[in-house]
Amino acid sequence: MTSALPPVQAVRWSDDGHSVRILDQRCLPEREVYRDLRTVSDVCDAIATLAVRGAPAIGIAGAMGLTLALNARPDDGRVQLLEDAAEQIRATRPTAVNLSWALDRMLARARGTSPSDDLRHILHNEASRILDEDRDMCRRLGELGSELIADGGRVLTHCNTGALATGGIGTALAAIYVAIEQGKRVSVYADETRPLLQGSRLTAWELQRAGIPVTVLVDGAAATLMRAGQVDACFVGADRIAANGDVANKVGTYALALAARSHGVPFYVVAPTSTFDPSTRRGEEIVIEKRKADEVRRGFGSPTAPPDVDVYNPAFDVTPADLITAIVSDRAIHRPPFDFGSGGR
Amino acid sequence: MTSALPPVQAVRWSDDGHSVRILDQRCLPEREVYRDLRTVSDVCDAIATLAVRGAPAIGIAGAMGLTLALNARPDDGRVQLLEDAAEQIRATRPTAVNLSWALDRMLARARGTSPSDDLRHILHNEASRILDEDRDMCRRLGELGSELIADGGRVLTHCNTGALATGGIGTALAAIYVAIEQGKRVSVYADETRPLLQGSRLTAWELQRAGIPVTVLVDGAAATLMRAGQVDACFVGADRIAANGDVANKVGTYALALAARSHGVPFYVVAPTSTFDPSTRRGEEIVIEKRKADEVRRGFGSPTAPPDVDVYNPAFDVTPADLITAIVSDRAIHRPPFDFGSGGR
Repeated sequence: MTSALPPVQAVRWSDDGHSVRILDQRCLPEREVYRDLRTVSDVCDAIATLAVRGAPAIGIAGAMGLTLALNARPDDGRVQLLEDAAEQIRATRPTAVNLSWALDRMLARARGTSPSDDLRHILHNEASRILDEDRDMCRRLGELGSELIADGGRVLTHCNTGALATGGIGTALAAIYVAIEQGKRVSVYADETRPLLQGSRLTAWELQRAGIPVTVLVDGAAATLMRAGQVDACFVGADRIAANGDVANKVGTYALALAARSHGVPFYVVAPTSTFDPSTRRGEEIVIEKRKADEVRRGFGSPTAPPDVDVYNPAFDVTPADLITAIVSDRAIHRPPFDFGSGGR
Repeated sequence: MTSALPPVQAVRWSDDGHSVRILDQRCLPEREVYRDLRTVSDVCDAIATLAVRGAPAIGIAGAMGLTLALNARPDDGRVQLLEDAAEQIRATRPTAVNLSWALDRMLARARGTSPSDDLRHILHNEASRILDEDRDMCRRLGELGSELIADGGRVLTHCNTGALATGGIGTALAAIYVAIEQGKRVSVYADETRPLLQGSRLTAWELQRAGIPVTVLVDGAAATLMRAGQVDACFVGADRIAANGDVANKVGTYALALAARSHGVPFYVVAPTSTFDPSTRRGEEIVIEKRKADEVRRGFGSPTAPPDVDVYNPAFDVTPADLITAIVSDRAIHRPPFDFGSGGR
C-alpha cells in the first residue's frame, strides 16, 4: 500500500529556527533545492516568484516569514514593524486569501501581547500552530474528499494541490492520497497547467515520488479526454471561495469545469477553512492577479512568442458555483446551493 | 490599410526548381530559416517534425516533395517509385486529409501519363497547380469568412491557420486578413496552443509582421476571456471535416468550442475543399494522431515534467458539429445541419 505521508515538505523552519526553509519549486522537477529565507524581503521574493506557491503554503510561508521582521529590529515599535512587513508580504499575491488570513492572524496575536512578552517566541509559536493546523486540516480534507473517489477512480486535476502546496498532504491531492491509503486503486491525470506548469512539474513529480500512477496532458487536451470517457471526477483546489460558492483557482480551472459539466463528470473543489472568504459575496468581487507577460513569452527559457507581443496572463479564473458538484471543506462535503456567508461554512 | 498579402511563404520551389524550399517553422519566432528539401526523406522528416505544418501546407509540401522521388531514379518503374514515395510521405501525419488528397491527385496524374511523357515536368506542374489553387482558395475563404467579422471585432483563434499553414493567406486567418483589407478594425487573441505553441510562436509572429494587433494567452485562459466578454467570435481551421460536420483540429479546439457555446460566442471553422472528407461519416471515425511524450515533457529543451512520466498527447481533437456556428468552405458559408457527404460540399 502506498503511504499517504507527504512525500516532501514545502515550508518549515530551518534547523536553527531563525529562518524559513522552503523547497524551491522553481527548480522542480530537475533539482530538489532547499533555500533558507532569512529576511522579509527574501520571503516576499520567494512568494512573488513562486519558489513557494499554493494558497495554504503561501499562508504558512507568510506567517513564518513575518517573524523574520523581528530579526531586523527586535525591540522598538515592534507591532508597527510587523504591520509594515505584513503589508509588504501581503502585496506579493493578491488573490489567495490564505495569505491575508495568516498575516492578519499573526498581527492580531502580536497586538494582543504586552511589551514585556517575548514577542518573537509568541509569533514563532503562532506560525508553527498555523503550520500544524494546516497539516491537520489537510488530513481531514483528505478523509472527507476520499469519500468521493471510488475504487478504480480516474481523477483529473489541475495545478498542484498536494504536499508542495500546503503544510500537509494537500487539499485536492489529499483526497487521492487518503483514497490510496484506504486501499483504493486511483490513477491521476495531471493537466500541465500553463503558464507555470505546476501540474507537469510539481503534481507529476510529487505523485511519482508517492508511487501513484500519473499521466500528464496539456490543458487543451482535458476536454477530449473527458469526451473519451477516461475521467471519473475532477478534483481541484481553490485560492479563494466566495460566500456564494464561486471559486477562484488557477487559470484553466473554469474551462475544465465547463468541460466536466458537458460530459457529466463530477467537479469537486477541496479547500481548507482559510480559503473561504465570507466577506466576498460573489466571484465577480475577487481581484484576479495579472502576472508578467514573459511567463508566457519565454516560458521555458527560450522565446516561445515574439519578445514584444501583448499577453493576457491572469493567474486565476473564477468558476461559478453552478458548475461545482461539491466543495469539500475540513468540516463537511458541501453541496449546492452553497452559502459560506458568515458562519455558513 | 494593412496589406492582406501573405507576410511570408511557407512552401515554394527553390530557385533552381529542383528542390522544395520551406520556412523551417521549428525555428520561429527566434530565427527565420529557410531550408531546401532535396529528397523524399527530407520531405518526410520536415513534415513529421513540423518544420512544415498546417493541413494545406502539408498537402502542398507532400505534392511538391513527391516529385523529388524522380530525382533518385528518373526512368524505370516511375509510377511504382512514386507510389512507394507517396506511402512514405502519407504515413508522416495520419489525421490531416489534405496530405492524402494531394498525394492521390499527384499519383492519379502520374498514372494518366504514357512512358513517352515528361513525367517530371508534368508532376512539377501539377504540384505548382496545387499550390496556386490553394492560394486562390485561401483568398476565397478569406472573402467569405470576412463577412462573419464585424468592424471592431475581437477574434479568438487557436493554432496557426495563416500564411504559415497554407500556400496563401491562410484559412481562418485569411478571414482576418481580408476583413482588415476591407478597412475593418480587427484584433486577435491567439491561444498559445500547447504543446507546440503554434499560436504564440507562429500566429503571433505572422500577425505582428502584418501589423495586426495580437494578444497571446495560454489555452486555459480562453474561457475566462470569453466570460469577461472580450471575444466576439472564434475562428479556427480544420485538419479533417467529416460528412456530418464534425471537425478534427488541433488539440484544444474542442475545449474552446465548449467555452464558446457556454458564452454565446459564435464558433467558426474555415477550411479549403481538400479538408472535407465525405468518406468519413462522423468524427468518431477520424484517426487521431498521438504524438511523442517529449513534446510535453521537454517542450523546449528543458525538463517540464519528470523525464519518464506517462503522457497523453493527442495532436488533434474532434469538435462535434452541434458546437459549430458555421463552416466556411471556398464555396459557401455552411450553416447546420451540415451535410458534406458526396457532392454535399
